[in-house]
Amino acid sequence: MYHHIKELMYTVHVDQPDPRFGNMLLEQFGGANGELAAAMQYSVQGINCDDPERKDLLMDIGTEELSHLEVVGVLTRMHLKPMKNNRSAAEADPLIAICGGGGVSLHNSMGSAWTADYLKITGEIDVDLRNNIAAEARAKITYERLMKFTNDQGTLDALQFLMTREITHMKAFTAALESLEKPVFSIGIIPPTPGLVDQYFNDSTGIGDRGEPDVRGPWNQGGSWELVEAPAFHMLRSQGTGEREATSGNGHAITAQVAEIKHVESDKKMAKRTPSRHKAVND
Amino acid sequence: MYHHIKELMYTVHVDQPDPRFGNMLLEQFGGANGELAAAMQYSVQGINCDDPERKDLLMDIGTEELSHLEVVGVLTRMHLKPMKNNRSAAEADPLIAICGGGGVSLHNSMGSAWTADYLKITGEIDVDLRNNIAAEARAKITYERLMKFTNDQGTLDALQFLMTREITHMKAFTAALESLEKPVFSIGIIPPTPGLVDQYFNDSTGIGDRGEPDVRGPWNQGGSWELVEAPAFHMLRSQGTGEREATSGNGHAITAQVAEIKHVESDKKMAKRTPSRHKAVND
Amino acid sequence: MYHHIKELMYTVHVDQPDPRFGNMLLEQFGGANGELAAAMQYSVQGINCDDPERKDLLMDIGTEELSHLEVVGVLTRMHLKPMKNNRSAAEADPLIAICGGGGVSLHNSMGSAWTADYLKITGEIDVDLRNNIAAEARAKITYERLMKFTNDQGTLDALQFLMTREITHMKAFTAALESLEKPVFSIGIIPPTPGLVDQYFNDSTGIGDRGEPDVRGPWNQGGSWELVEAPAFHMLRSQGTGEREATSGNGHAITAQVAEIKHVESDKKMAKRTPSRHKAVND
Amino acid sequence: MYHHIKELMYTVHVDQPDPRFGNMLLEQFGGANGELAAAMQYSVQGINCDDPERKDLLMDIGTEELSHLEVVGVLTRMHLKPMKNNRSAAEADPLIAICGGGGVSLHNSMGSAWTADYLKITGEIDVDLRNNIAAEARAKITYERLMKFTNDQGTLDALQFLMTREITHMKAFTAALESLEKPVFSIGIIPPTPGLVDQYFNDSTGIGDRGEPDVRGPWNQGGSWELVEAPAFHMLRSQGTGEREATSGNGHAITAQVAEIKHVESDKKMAKRTPSRHKAVND
Amino acid sequence: MYHHIKELMYTVHVDQPDPRFGNMLLEQFGGANGELAAAMQYSVQGINCDDPERKDLLMDIGTEELSHLEVVGVLTRMHLKPMKNNRSAAEADPLIAICGGGGVSLHNSMGSAWTADYLKITGEIDVDLRNNIAAEARAKITYERLMKFTNDQGTLDALQFLMTREITHMKAFTAALESLEKPVFSIGIIPPTPGLVDQYFNDSTGIGDRGEPDVRGPWNQGGSWELVEAPAFHMLRSQGTGEREATSGNGHAITAQVAEIKHVESDKKMAKRTPSRHKAVND
Amino acid sequence: MYHHIKELMYTVHVDQPDPRFGNMLLEQFGGANGELAAAMQYSVQGINCDDPERKDLLMDIGTEELSHLEVVGVLTRMHLKPMKNNRSAAEADPLIAICGGGGVSLHNSMGSAWTADYLKITGEIDVDLRNNIAAEARAKITYERLMKFTNDQGTLDALQFLMTREITHMKAFTAALESLEKPVFSIGIIPPTPGLVDQYFNDSTGIGDRGEPDVRGPWNQGGSWELVEAPAFHMLRSQGTGEREATSGNGHAITAQVAEIKHVESDKKMAKRTPSRHKAVND
Repeated sequence: MYHHIKELMYTVHVDQPDPRFGNMLLEQFGGANGELAAAMQYSVQGINCDDPERKDLLMDIGTEELSHLEVVGVLTRMHLKPMKNNRSAAEADPLIAICGGGGVSLHNSMGSAWTADYLKITGEIDVDLRNNIAAEARAKITYERLMKFTNDQGTLDALQFLMTREITHMKAFTAALESLEKPVFSIGIIPPTPGLVDQYFNDSTGIGDRGEPDVRGPWNQGGSWELVEAPAFHMLRSQGTGEREATSGNGHAITAQVAEIKHVESDKKMAKRTPSRHKAVND
Repeated sequence: MYHHIKELMYTVHVDQPDPRFGNMLLEQFGGANGELAAAMQYSVQGINCDDPERKDLLMDIGTEELSHLEVVGVLTRMHLKPMKNNRSAAEADPLIAICGGGGVSLHNSMGSAWTADYLKITGEIDVDLRNNIAAEARAKITYERLMKFTNDQGTLDALQFLMTREITHMKAFTAALESLEKPVFSIGIIPPTPGLVDQYFNDSTGIGDRGEPDVRGPWNQGGSWELVEAPAFHMLRSQGTGEREATSGNGHAITAQVAEIKHVESDKKMAKRTPSRHKAVND
Repeated sequence: MYHHIKELMYTVHVDQPDPRFGNMLLEQFGGANGELAAAMQYSVQGINCDDPERKDLLMDIGTEELSHLEVVGVLTRMHLKPMKNNRSAAEADPLIAICGGGGVSLHNSMGSAWTADYLKITGEIDVDLRNNIAAEARAKITYERLMKFTNDQGTLDALQFLMTREITHMKAFTAALESLEKPVFSIGIIPPTPGLVDQYFNDSTGIGDRGEPDVRGPWNQGGSWELVEAPAFHMLRSQGTGEREATSGNGHAITAQVAEIKHVESDKKMAKRTPSRHKAVND
Repeated sequence: MYHHIKELMYTVHVDQPDPRFGNMLLEQFGGANGELAAAMQYSVQGINCDDPERKDLLMDIGTEELSHLEVVGVLTRMHLKPMKNNRSAAEADPLIAICGGGGVSLHNSMGSAWTADYLKITGEIDVDLRNNIAAEARAKITYERLMKFTNDQGTLDALQFLMTREITHMKAFTAALESLEKPVFSIGIIPPTPGLVDQYFNDSTGIGDRGEPDVRGPWNQGGSWELVEAPAFHMLRSQGTGEREATSGNGHAITAQVAEIKHVESDKKMAKRTPSRHKAVND
Repeated sequence: MYHHIKELMYTVHVDQPDPRFGNMLLEQFGGANGELAAAMQYSVQGINCDDPERKDLLMDIGTEELSHLEVVGVLTRMHLKPMKNNRSAAEADPLIAICGGGGVSLHNSMGSAWTADYLKITGEIDVDLRNNIAAEARAKITYERLMKFTNDQGTLDALQFLMTREITHMKAFTAALESLEKPVFSIGIIPPTPGLVDQYFNDSTGIGDRGEPDVRGPWNQGGSWELVEAPAFHMLRSQGTGEREATSGNGHAITAQVAEIKHVESDKKMAKRTPSRHKAVND
Repeated sequence: MYHHIKELMYTVHVDQPDPRFGNMLLEQFGGANGELAAAMQYSVQGINCDDPERKDLLMDIGTEELSHLEVVGVLTRMHLKPMKNNRSAAEADPLIAICGGGGVSLHNSMGSAWTADYLKITGEIDVDLRNNIAAEARAKITYERLMKFTNDQGTLDALQFLMTREITHMKAFTAALESLEKPVFSIGIIPPTPGLVDQYFNDSTGIGDRGEPDVRGPWNQGGSWELVEAPAFHMLRSQGTGEREATSGNGHAITAQVAEIKHVESDKKMAKRTPSRHKAVND
C-alpha cells in the first residue's frame, strides 16, 4: 500500500526553462532507462519475490524510484512549460506541445511511448539482481550525459542527487547478489555441458578497416578457456571430407577452398572441439 | 562482413513435432531474451565500440548468436510445421499458422513482434558488459525453463547446447569487465555525492500480509551504509515545523499526526540525512 | 514523495489457483484499462496540473491506484504460480511461464507489453477529468467481466473491492468536473463556428442487412440540431453543376447520376449548409 | 458499404507550405487523438453495437471522421511537400522525407506509427459513449492548439471547420448517452459495495513544495462522502497493535511512530472505515 | 552458421561528420526499409523455405544484407559521433546522444525502435519473392533520397554501392519468381470466383478539388474487365426497390435520390454484377 | 469524402459461431495483411499521389477495402459473440472477451494492436504499386489459409468473395504498373553502378544439414550475371596480402588459412569483382 506526501524527495529549482533540454529530460521520465522503468522493474520483481529479505530491498528501492519519477516529472515540466504557447519551443517536441499542452508524458525524448518491453523481470532473484545492477549503471550514465547538456544550476543539483542515488542502488543490489553466496556463473539448476562451456568460438576474424585486431584476452585464454578458431570454417571442412554429398554442378570453387582449409587445419583435432555437436549427429 | 555456411552450429533432430512447444520456443527466436536480441545487442555494441580488444569479443559473440538464431529457428520450424494444415495445432499460434503458414517469424510465444526496445546498448563499454552479463543470465534461465516443458531428446540436446553457450558468454563478458580494472561502482566520470551515496532509504516499512519483514541486510547495514528511516515521514515532519503555510481549512488531521511524528523524530538529526536536499532548498 | 507500507489495501485469498484466470487478470495489471494505466494517467496529470485543488484529487486517486496495482499483482501472482512447473498451466501464457517463471509482468492477457499509448493526458483539466470518468467506467466493466469468469470467493471479494473503488473515483472525477462550472460543451477557448456546430451529417444511410435503421434521435433532432442528409451526395451534386470541368472520356455514368440527384436536391439550399466550406472556396 | 466522392468535405487552401507545421498536423492524421483514431473508434464500436439507434449514430460520425481524415491528409500533404527535395525541410521529419518522399503517413508528429492502442472500445454502449465524449474533447483541444501555431488563413479555416465538428460530435454523443436514461454512476450490472463506494481515501497528504494544499472539495465532502485519512497510516497502525509479529531487530523506529499515530487516531473508529478489507481478513 | 570477417563489404570514408544526416541514415540501419529488415526478412524466409533452390538464394542475399547492415552502421556511427559531447548535435537525436552516447542503435530517424512488424514473411515462396521485390524497390528509393541530402563524397560512394546492390537483389528475386513458371495471378491453390474476379468496382467517383478525374485505364477496361459503377449506390437502389422496409420517418430524401438513381441504372443489369453476393443472400 | 450505406458489400451468414475461428479471423480485421492495412495503404498512397490516373485507382480500391473491413468485422463479430459470457470461449481471446465484451477490435489473432508499421507507403507510384501487388498476394493466401480451418458454409462463402477480390486488385495494380511503361528494374532516377549491379554474391555456401545445395539458377547465371564466390573470403585474402598490418600475437591461424585461400583464388581477378569498393579505398 502506498502513501504520497506532497513534497518532493528533492526540491527542484529551474532558473531558465530550456524546452529542448526538457525534451532530453524525458529520457529519465518515460524513457528506457528512466525512473518509471526502474520503479516498475523493482516493484514487480518485489511482488513476485519469494525471498522475503530481498523482497524488502526491491520494495524499498522500487518505492524510492517512484519518488524520483515525481522529481524528474516536476523538473521536466518546468523546462517544457513554454511549449504550450511558443511555436519555436513547441518544435522541440510537438507531441508534448500539441497533445500535452506542455506537460510531461510517459514518452522518451524522441516521442516513443513508454513500454514494458524495457523491463527485465525473470522471477529468478539472482538474475533479477543482475538485471538491476545493469539498469542502475545505465541510469547513472544517462544522468551524467544529461548533466553535460545544461548549465542551469538548479537542474544540475537535482540531476546530481538522482545520479548519486543510482550508485547507491547499484551498491545495494550488488550486496544483495553477493549475500546469496551463489557461485558466480551458476544460474538456475541445470549445469552447462562440461568442456563445451570453456570453448571460446573465434567467430570474427581478420583485421578491420581501421586496424581492429583479432584479440586474445582473459575472456578467451588462460584458466580453462579453449580457443576454437572460426567454427564456421570447421563446418566447411567437414562438408569437404565426405560426410555429405554435394549436389552436382555447384559449389566447386568452395570445394577447392575447403581442400586447402582442410590441409591447414589437419593437425587441430577439430572433432574434439565441438563434441556435443558431433555426438548429436551420431545419435 | 558476414559469410554463411549451410550447416547448423548444432544439428537438430526432432522426433515428435509439438506445435505448442514450438510456440514456446519462439521466445528464444523472436522474444525479449532470445537469440536475435543477443546477436543485435552485442553486434551493435561492437560497431560502436572504441575499445579494439572488447570490440573483437563483441563481434565474436554477436556472430555466434546469429548462428544460434539459425539453430533455434530450424528447431522451432520443425515443431511448428503441423500448424499449416491442422486446425488444432493452428490454435496454438494462429499468427504463425495463418500469416506464416507454419513457419517461424520474429515474434515471441504470445505473438508480440520483436522490437529493439528489448536491447540495452549504451556506448559505454563497462555498462554494456554489465548489460550483457545480465542478458546471458536471462537467456540461460529461459533455456532451462524450456527444457522443463519437453521430453523430446533431440530438442533437449539442442537446448542443452545453446544453454551451455550462454554460460560461456557470461564468463567471457565477466572476464572482459574485470579486465577493465575499473572500481566496481565507478560508472562514467562524475562522482556521486559523498554521504548521500551511502544512505539507504527505508521506503517500504511494516510487516506484510504474509509476514514479509522489514529487513536489515548487507545492502543497508555495515560498511559505510547509513539507514534513513522512511524519508517520506521526514518530509511530513518538516512540513509540520513551520517551513510552509498550510492552506486554511484542510489537512488538520494530518497536522495533528505530524506533530506526533515530529516528537518521535526530534532526536534524529534529520537535516544531516538528506543534506543535498536541504542545501538545495536553502540556496 | 511516496512511502510503501507492507500491507495490501485489500488482503487477498485464493483457494484454488487458476492459471487461465490469472492470465485474464493480467488485463487489470498490465492491460489497457488496468491499474497501472489508471495510476499513471492520474499521477502524471497531477504533476502537470496548475489547478491546486484538482491536483490534490489527482494525486490522491493516482496513489490509490498504485495500491490497487499491488493488490491485483499479488492476486494474479497467486493464480499464475503453477505456470512455472506445469506444462499445461504454462500453455495459458507461455510468456509468463518461460520468461517470467510464473510471476506477473506488465503485459495484458494476450501478452502485449503495457504501453503509455493507453494513457489520455492532455494538460487541460476539464478534458483530463472527462478522460478519467471514461477510464473509470472502462475499469468498472472490466472488473465485472472478470467476475463472471471465476467462482473463487477470495478472488471475487478482491475484485468486488476494486470494482467498487472505480465507481468511487468516477463519482469524484465527476464532482470535480462539475465544480469547474464550465458550460458542458466548452472546451478550450476558441468557440466553434455557429450554425455548423449544430449540423448533424447523416453520413450513413439506408437499412442494414439485419434491418438496422437510419434513425432520428435527440442527437440529431430537436433543440438546435439541423439534419444534413448525406453530405457526400451534396458534393456530388455540386460537381455536376459546373463548378468543375470533368476530364474528357470518363465519369459519364456518374454525371448522369449527378444530374438526377441535383434535381432532387434543388430546393434544399445546400450552400447554406456547409457555409465555411464555400467561404473557403471563394477566398 | 462505403462510397468515396472525389471532393473534400472541406476544400483546403495553403498559401505558404510550412513543413514544421505539417509535421505538427500529423497529430490529427496519424496521432493518438487524430481522425483515424476517431473514425476507427466509432466505426468499430458501431460494428459491435446491438443498440440499433446508437449504432446509426456511431456509423454516421465514424464515416464523417473518415472524411475528416482525408481533409487533414490533403492539408498536411500540402505543408509537407517541400520535404522531398529540401534538406532543411526534411530535418523537420526525416521519416516523412526519406521514407515517404514528403507524403503523409500514419505517424504522429514525433514519428510514432499509429496504433490501435489509442482506441477505447468496450462493447458497452454507455461506456463507449463516455469514451467518445472524452475523445471529442481531446480532439477539440488538439485542433485549438494547432491553430495557435499557424498564421496561414486557409489552414486556419480548415482547422476551424474540423474543430467545430468535434463539438458537434461531443454534443451528439452526450445526447445519446443521456437518452439511455441510465443512472449516472451505474456501469454494468453488478452494484458497488455500499459504504465503501462513498469513502474517499486521502492518499496524498501534506503541503507541496510550491504550496500545493491538501484539499476538501465536492469530490470528498458533502453528500454521502466519507473522508478516510491516509489509509496507509491506518495499515501501519494496525500492524503496531499486535495483529502481526514484527521480525526481531528491525522496524523499531516505525513502531514508535506508529504508537503516536495510533494515539492521534484513537477516536476515529478506523475499523469501520475499511470494512470490506477487515471482513476479508476475518473470513 | 555464420562467420564474420573484420572488414567491411564496402570501406567507408566520411570527410565531415554531419549528425543530422547521421540521424537520417538511421532509416537504413534500424528503419522500416533498412538493412536489418532486409536481412531478417530474407533469412527467416530462408529458414522456412522448402524449395531448396530458392532457399539458397534467400540465404545468400539475407547474409549480404547483414554485411550491408554493418556498412551502414559504421557509416552512420561516423556521422553521429559528435552527438556525445556537442549539445547542438545532440538535439538532432537526443535518444542517440543521451541513451546511446552517440552510437548507432536499432531505431529509425524519428527514434522508433525497429520492430518485426516491418517484415513480410508468409511461408509461400512466390508471395515471399513478391514481398522481396517490393522491399528492394523501397530500399533503392530510400538510398536515393538519402543521396539527395548529403554532399560528402565518401558517404555518397557508400550509398551508391548499397543502392546498386538493391537493384541486383531485385533482379535476382524477379528471376527466381519467374523461374517458378506460375501463372502471374495464381496465388495458393483455391481459384477465385470466375466473373467476380473481373469486376472492377468504381468506388470513388466524381471530380476532385484539384480536378482529379474518374478514370478508365488498363486496370478497369479492356481484356476481361467489367466496370461496376459505384457498388454502394447499387446497394442503395436495392434497398429502395422494396427488398427491405425503411423505418418510418427517416431516410425519405435518400429514398427519393434512390428512385432517381434506379432510373438511371435501370438498363444496367445490376443483379448480374455482384452475383456471388446475391447468391449468398439467396442461399 | 465518404458515404456509408447500411448494407454489407457481401451479406454474411454464420450457422455456428466458432469463437476460436473468430479469433483467427481477426487477422483479416486488425492484422498485418488485413483489410484495414489494405484500406489505409491504398487510401494514404492515394492522398499522396500526383499521378491523377493511378490516384483514382488507389481511391477506388482503398474504398473497397473499407467495405471489406466492415464485412470481415461483422463476420468476425458473429463468431466472437459467445466470448462475452462463456468462460471456455473467452479463453480463445481474453482481450476480446474481457476488454471488448466479445466485440471485434483492431487486434490480430494473437492480440497485437494494429499498427501503421504494417503499411508500405513510399510516395513513389511504381514502388507503391509493387507494395500493393505484394500486399494483395499476402491477403489472398491469408484468406485461403483461413478457409482451411472452417466448415461453416456462410463463412466460407464470404471468405471466397473477399479472397476473389484480392486477385482482382492484384490484377488491377499489375496493369497500372505495366501501364507506366517503366523499365522493370528502373526505380527512381539514379542509375546503379554498372558491373557491380550484375554481380551475384554467393554469401551462403556449402551443403546444409538436410542436404540443402549451393545452387546456380537464373538468378545468378546466364544473362549479364557474374557470380562472385564468397566475398567474405576475398576480404580475408586481401588482408593476408599485406594491405594491412596484423597486430602482433593474434590471428596467426587465420593468416595461415588465408594463405591457402589466396592460392586457390589467385586466378580469379578479384580486384575487378568489387570495383567500387577498391575505388573508394584508393580515393
